[in-house]
Amino acid sequence: MRMTGTRVAVAGASGYAGGELLRLLLAHPEVEIGALTANSNAGERLGALQPHLLPLADRILEPTTVEVLSGHDVVFLALPHGTSAALAEQLPEQMVIVDCGADFRLKDAEAWTTFYGTEHAGSWPYGLPELPDHRAALQGATRIAVPGCYPTVSSLILAPAVAAGLIEPDVVVVAASGTSGAGKALKANLLGSEVMGNTSAYGVGGVHRHTPEITQNLSALAGEPVTVSFTPMLVPMSRGILATGTATLKPGVTADQVQQAYAAAFADEQFVHVLPQGQWPQTKSVVGSNAVHLQVAVDEAANKLVAVGAVDNLTKGTAGAAVQCMNLALGFPEQTGLSTIGLAP
Amino acid sequence: MRMTGTRVAVAGASGYAGGELLRLLLAHPEVEIGALTANSNAGERLGALQPHLLPLADRILEPTTVEVLSGHDVVFLALPHGTSAALAEQLPEQMVIVDCGADFRLKDAEAWTTFYGTEHAGSWPYGLPELPDHRAALQGATRIAVPGCYPTVSSLILAPAVAAGLIEPDVVVVAASGTSGAGKALKANLLGSEVMGNTSAYGVGGVHRHTPEITQNLSALAGEPVTVSFTPMLVPMSRGILATGTATLKPGVTADQVQQAYAAAFADEQFVHVLPQGQWPQTKSVVGSNAVHLQVAVDEAANKLVAVGAVDNLTKGTAGAAVQCMNLALGFPEQTGLSTIGLAP
Amino acid sequence: MRMTGTRVAVAGASGYAGGELLRLLLAHPEVEIGALTANSNAGERLGALQPHLLPLADRILEPTTVEVLSGHDVVFLALPHGTSAALAEQLPEQMVIVDCGADFRLKDAEAWTTFYGTEHAGSWPYGLPELPDHRAALQGATRIAVPGCYPTVSSLILAPAVAAGLIEPDVVVVAASGTSGAGKALKANLLGSEVMGNTSAYGVGGVHRHTPEITQNLSALAGEPVTVSFTPMLVPMSRGILATGTATLKPGVTADQVQQAYAAAFADEQFVHVLPQGQWPQTKSVVGSNAVHLQVAVDEAANKLVAVGAVDNLTKGTAGAAVQCMNLALGFPEQTGLSTIGLAP
Amino acid sequence: MRMTGTRVAVAGASGYAGGELLRLLLAHPEVEIGALTANSNAGERLGALQPHLLPLADRILEPTTVEVLSGHDVVFLALPHGTSAALAEQLPEQMVIVDCGADFRLKDAEAWTTFYGTEHAGSWPYGLPELPDHRAALQGATRIAVPGCYPTVSSLILAPAVAAGLIEPDVVVVAASGTSGAGKALKANLLGSEVMGNTSAYGVGGVHRHTPEITQNLSALAGEPVTVSFTPMLVPMSRGILATGTATLKPGVTADQVQQAYAAAFADEQFVHVLPQGQWPQTKSVVGSNAVHLQVAVDEAANKLVAVGAVDNLTKGTAGAAVQCMNLALGFPEQTGLSTIGLAP
Repeated sequence: MRMTGTRVAVAGASGYAGGELLRLLLAHPEVEIGALTANSNAGERLGALQPHLLPLADRILEPTTVEVLSGHDVVFLALPHGTSAALAEQLPEQMVIVDCGADFRLKDAEAWTTFYGTEHAGSWPYGLPELPDHRAALQGATRIAVPGCYPTVSSLILAPAVAAGLIEPDVVVVAASGTSGAGKALKANLLGSEVMGNTSAYGVGGVHRHTPEITQNLSALAGEPVTVSFTPMLVPMSRGILATGTATLKPGVTADQVQQAYAAAFADEQFVHVLPQGQWPQTKSVVGSNAVHLQVAVDEAANKLVAVGAVDNLTKGTAGAAVQCMNLALGFPEQTGLSTIGLAP
Repeated sequence: MRMTGTRVAVAGASGYAGGELLRLLLAHPEVEIGALTANSNAGERLGALQPHLLPLADRILEPTTVEVLSGHDVVFLALPHGTSAALAEQLPEQMVIVDCGADFRLKDAEAWTTFYGTEHAGSWPYGLPELPDHRAALQGATRIAVPGCYPTVSSLILAPAVAAGLIEPDVVVVAASGTSGAGKALKANLLGSEVMGNTSAYGVGGVHRHTPEITQNLSALAGEPVTVSFTPMLVPMSRGILATGTATLKPGVTADQVQQAYAAAFADEQFVHVLPQGQWPQTKSVVGSNAVHLQVAVDEAANKLVAVGAVDNLTKGTAGAAVQCMNLALGFPEQTGLSTIGLAP
Repeated sequence: MRMTGTRVAVAGASGYAGGELLRLLLAHPEVEIGALTANSNAGERLGALQPHLLPLADRILEPTTVEVLSGHDVVFLALPHGTSAALAEQLPEQMVIVDCGADFRLKDAEAWTTFYGTEHAGSWPYGLPELPDHRAALQGATRIAVPGCYPTVSSLILAPAVAAGLIEPDVVVVAASGTSGAGKALKANLLGSEVMGNTSAYGVGGVHRHTPEITQNLSALAGEPVTVSFTPMLVPMSRGILATGTATLKPGVTADQVQQAYAAAFADEQFVHVLPQGQWPQTKSVVGSNAVHLQVAVDEAANKLVAVGAVDNLTKGTAGAAVQCMNLALGFPEQTGLSTIGLAP
Repeated sequence: MRMTGTRVAVAGASGYAGGELLRLLLAHPEVEIGALTANSNAGERLGALQPHLLPLADRILEPTTVEVLSGHDVVFLALPHGTSAALAEQLPEQMVIVDCGADFRLKDAEAWTTFYGTEHAGSWPYGLPELPDHRAALQGATRIAVPGCYPTVSSLILAPAVAAGLIEPDVVVVAASGTSGAGKALKANLLGSEVMGNTSAYGVGGVHRHTPEITQNLSALAGEPVTVSFTPMLVPMSRGILATGTATLKPGVTADQVQQAYAAAFADEQFVHVLPQGQWPQTKSVVGSNAVHLQVAVDEAANKLVAVGAVDNLTKGTAGAAVQCMNLALGFPEQTGLSTIGLAP
């Protein structure tokens, strides 16, 4: 099924995820950009808030209401966590809703409540098609939950090892993120003067909200509970996540097995690229692109597998994944409007 | 014993470690700065190479020879790895030599050869006085090996847990470093255009040369071999390391025990500061200072201890430690010429 | 005339301009990417040097020779200054050659020799179609000189005022550039450790090689010699130039006249955008795009016109302009393969 | 007169200027740090807001009231513009008040009202002792207005040329500043995600509040009105200003005269350093220091003098100048507690 003139709306168009959605949708040959909505910024010119989106500079932001969003084929929600659910249930059933927020990512209601503090709204098909058995549920779907930025890359770097049973079900993920992952919220610790020249830890000790999502992904792959220790860092760049995953090798596992498992896992994937041996991922190679760069090594002395992945948190980590999921939902070729070319230097 | 007018020389004064030594020595009340030497830059004005060291701008760099260095009370060696040993053995025995390079850090000749590829030159007292039982060996010493930047912070963040037997002897260290740790070498991947907006992994899989040093430190504390998985990242800032250490808690260990062990371990240390609970280290707080900021958490769901530390790789990670060690060697108060105040924002 | 399957080669594919050319050409619907050449990097995988160009990762760089480049419809030269001329004269006459270097930019042989120190090779049509009377010479051209990055934005911000006779022929241009403008050369002052957290001046006092090019452009517009004082700065970012141009208003010139002259000058241009009043350019809005953002103000107290423009030095400042010029040369719509959407944040 | 145990208070201790004052005062041998005050942050631990000031981490911020500030020998005001005046008039006359805000910088009431919109509070001795005839008024003063950061460096780079009558009284100042100059205010355009990788213009066209201050300084030196066109840029670094000043040379002025004027002007100054010919200022050389680095060139083709200066906006541009002024006020040696050594790389 190939549609033209698919009308899409973006709710939350003044934020970083919303801006990235629009950057990608402007280059998408099958869509027509409809309503752009915001909350406190409703009524403003988009050009005043997102001056890089020149073709949309004169668009006026509308309020985020059911009325404004109705009448589109697709609505992307780029809203604060906890606000998508109420809105989504008022929108037409046949409309494709792609939620960039967390509301529908977790299957476990208790995990939701523990980490988000509110009642669980349910779960939608999870928009990481490169995980085994995930793509089919997205094809033709009308409700899709886009993964969190950290879980996207953290799950992908460990998925082949977990799925192939190469590592013990107890992993350590330490990941460095650019600041756009924290959004446009006005917080003192996100000021440029604080961020530049600075690396900080936050959400340490299993309290970051992306922890249960990584756990959910890896445990499903393993068929048993996987313990995840997740530690994020904030590093001085706007975009990009570099994630490292470390786990103890199961007895007898060789480096060759590891290499083969990773090569095989993503051989048919357009967006996930295992680098040639000896080359390690860097975030700049994937900035602005929907690609994930991966590499894996075996540390024999420590008996560990160490995998590293790079992703643009706003593109494959959020808005690119959202567009990829829309493509699957509507039957467009999966890569439509998406690039594997980064912006460097 | 308190001496005045201690004459110090710096070999390798045109590099980053050498420059930082001079920045600190200029503020040290007990020393007189003697010869400054370099290799390819010999003959140049220091002001052309280190314009921030205004009081020394008109000094001319001399060649790094025994003749030039002799006649000083203290010589700091800030030379490429593998070059200190040959020079050191020609210098007078009573001279205090503080080596910022790796040559004399490792006790294990085999580990040296595995990681550095040359014959082991021996080992000197290890200049990390905040590790248990290390300070005494530095007092009055005439030969001191300054620790590597990553091992300094990686060892300190895990030392209390290892020493108190709170964690299994199998740790994962992932650390993010600013680019000055790689020195002033002209490499394409260190160009500003490559580094800015970019985080990359390197030396993954146990191959980084600082791995055996961390292993040596933690194993000595544990009284048994500790397995160390070490993964470094390069992040877009000039100075600073943020290190994370993750390990499985031993059965029955409580969060209280962990907090107490960390508080007790550094209660008498001037340069190592455990932050109040809930506050996490950031590198900018320690830039230009000799302080280390630490925090630790217990992740009950994952049964892990996670410790985080921040250090300036050039100050406490190299040159500040060198000055601190000189103070111990010569009997000056340990904090002389050193600060615990960072430069922020 | 519309051609498909135009075969293009890029000479200098391992550098920043070459990499940006390839990034853009990969998205150009009318071209097929042929030979990629380099000098010292010939024989290497492109993926090792430009890992962001994933679709070309397995291409091998060939040496930059006439043999390798022949047989293409278009050759882009992204070579060091002074090396294009010798190569160009050996290539077929009917081949379209787009030179990103300086060799053929200046019409004045004496200015060339003064600033570049070698004999003048001649001048080619100057690839800044947005300057009055420049587009026609590029349509169907087979030899094109792409402007320098600073001259592109410096000329555009002052062109309307000069062409309309609103300012005295004596202008001050001060511009801040990201480091990629200096290329991938291994120089100590371009290391990340030096560049981050640092702004520096260079080429001050009329000695920067882009000075005569700005002078040439503005003088041609004025119909009389325009005096140009040009001062560049290096700022801590990879991409982008922000240029300011200041000049004394001619007697009686009003702010309204100024606004109208700027609005009119670029009303039909797709890539040059005068921002709404009160909004000032920033480089990030144009990163990765072929757009130029402009704004102008009248300072009545100082009797000055102040114009500001932002450009990506690698895109509209080099490789984007080169593609735009190829489009004009071959009769493709001028915007083919080019975007006005920047990558932000 | 030499005092020990001078008790100093800092009003506005939670901001950037306040933090820098404390960083410097901690290293000042003659002072004892008394009350630290804030407005909305009163009641908080300083360590939560300024974690780099380790020795003061447990200090509690008090409200900014006359009662809290009374009983100190010196009070530094690091408050928003327009708030110092009301507070100052309630403090004891014999107390030394050093105001880092703008309230008392301008002599011209009309200029004040034009740029700040409120009634003029008066003017105090202007704390830039390196300007001719300014030092004497600061010695023993009890009220001092610390200059703005841009005016400090912009005035110093042009002062020798203006004072010696070498240039026409019509200057163009374009300056790039790090973000800390904008303070800790929570504004979207100051977020790290916006600032990193970005250079922007603001306050263009003579509307920046530092314009009348530069005009005041240069006009006083010239003995006639000097026209100042001032254009600031925001560049992606936390600290530092690089300022360029361009002006037409008066007839017959030679490069030699210019060099001599600059050398002579600052020959006896400890903090203002004219670099050797051929070396240009960079901000990183002065970060954290009270030094100003200068250079000047003559552009014969354009008949212009171009001067460039680098300063740390928080140190010599604000807090360092404030301490220097306190030293003059109290009769301490002028450099007490201040450094000319920058923190690099």
